[in-house]
Amino acid sequence: MKILLHLSYLGTNYCGYQVQPNGVTIQQKLNEAAKQLFGYDCDIVGCSRTDSGVHANEFCATVTKKKENALYTNIPTDKIPQAITHWLPDDICVFAAEEVADDFHPRYDVKYKEYVYKIWNSPVRDPFTQGRAWHCPKRIDDEGLERMKRAAACYIGKKDFCSFMASDSKVEDTVREVFDSELEREGELITFRVRADGFLYNMVRIFVGTLVDVAYGKIEPEDIPKIIEQRDRRAAGSTAPPHGLYLNKVSY
Amino acid sequence: MKILLHLSYLGTNYCGYQVQPNGVTIQQKLNEAAKQLFGYDCDIVGCSRTDSGVHANEFCATVTKKKENALYTNIPTDKIPQAITHWLPDDICVFAAEEVADDFHPRYDVKYKEYVYKIWNSPVRDPFTQGRAWHCPKRIDDEGLERMKRAAACYIGKKDFCSFMASDSKVEDTVREVFDSELEREGELITFRVRADGFLYNMVRIFVGTLVDVAYGKIEPEDIPKIIEQRDRRAAGSTAPPHGLYLNKVSY
Repeated sequence: MKILLHLSYLGTNYCGYQVQPNGVTIQQKLNEAAKQLFGYDCDIVGCSRTDSGVHANEFCATVTKKKENALYTNIPTDKIPQAITHWLPDDICVFAAEEVADDFHPRYDVKYKEYVYKIWNSPVRDPFTQGRAWHCPKRIDDEGLERMKRAAACYIGKKDFCSFMASDSKVEDTVREVFDSELEREGELITFRVRADGFLYNMVRIFVGTLVDVAYGKIEPEDIPKIIEQRDRRAAGSTAPPHGLYLNKVSY
Repeated sequence: MKILLHLSYLGTNYCGYQVQPNGVTIQQKLNEAAKQLFGYDCDIVGCSRTDSGVHANEFCATVTKKKENALYTNIPTDKIPQAITHWLPDDICVFAAEEVADDFHPRYDVKYKEYVYKIWNSPVRDPFTQGRAWHCPKRIDDEGLERMKRAAACYIGKKDFCSFMASDSKVEDTVREVFDSELEREGELITFRVRADGFLYNMVRIFVGTLVDVAYGKIEPEDIPKIIEQRDRRAAGSTAPPHGLYLNKVSY
């Protein structure tokens, strides 16, 4: 039996998802909690790597006994979320668990992933979205939002998104299919939602940085297809900060 | 000129609003920021006292030069929010400022105040509402929510709310008029919203504790009028914790 965990976390206090030599990570906390709960070392394999400060409304990871392809436990699967969450810090929780096939892989089997990015658009910062949204103080008016929407629509489709990948990334196949890319405003909060079969490194953050440049008139919405065609990181806009980004949904 | 500040804060790290000998308070932080901005000691008078851990989406306070009834500054009123927020910690911000009459009093002139109370109703706790909602793990089903709504409606009207006041409170006039009292569920989040001309000490928290007792069948919705009639704190339900409570609106 292999178990897939569905978790959510506030990334503020972590150096991203993946275990690394310096700094506390989500994966490390999951490892520690799994060992406490099951009584032996475990392998935790995640659906992706999120950066330092990035959050997750839904992140998926399998848990198995270390170096084996199964988990051995008497705990009923539906009781695992509460049981493992007991051993996790307040800013990480497992809200669901399910049995998956032995050959299931949480990264390779992903059909699509959805990210949301939150922008706090108000002259004054907000205590409740601090560390949870990007504060853009300069007002984005209705026209600015319309421009952003027109630009966001240009991201949809199966395209080479090389211009929207961090320049130090070594990935060679830079073609991804974006299914949805949309914006909505609710009061001072602007939310960007994007769904794709996969994402390049920093892709969503460069999508958003570019959209904000479009809102403020630095880039025209009609330039987006040309930016994509150029296959050059320098053609796109800035990289939005990590703390507005949420992995929102993972579908298998 | 007297200035009324509209602020919001996350109460988690504070011992409530009011300055006190032990522990950091919102009022103290406002005092420090006002002194930095205006260059002299100020009097800050708030619209109410919020308890330790209670939050505010809108809290109002006047600022004047200490022992005087006016504020002397060259800063245009519409620039004060950003300017004073610069001197405040991340979890407090002033989002609006306006000039008010010399005889204006932020506490006595209140027409109504609105509070919201958030309940996270899921077996597993949630990283994003941690410290921002009361976690009630036992499922409240549709029938339970209907019971809560029926009970909440009984709070509306001009009544003696003595049963819903902390037993150590010394207030003598315990009659208040409640204008609205309603509940809504959005996913796993249940929000209680109540508007009144004034509130007794712990009144909203006892309202909510009682509603949750109603949801779980410990109190019948039809018992609320009798509980009010008894004028005895012991007749009502438990006191909900402070961290789900938000002062939401103050109207003059």
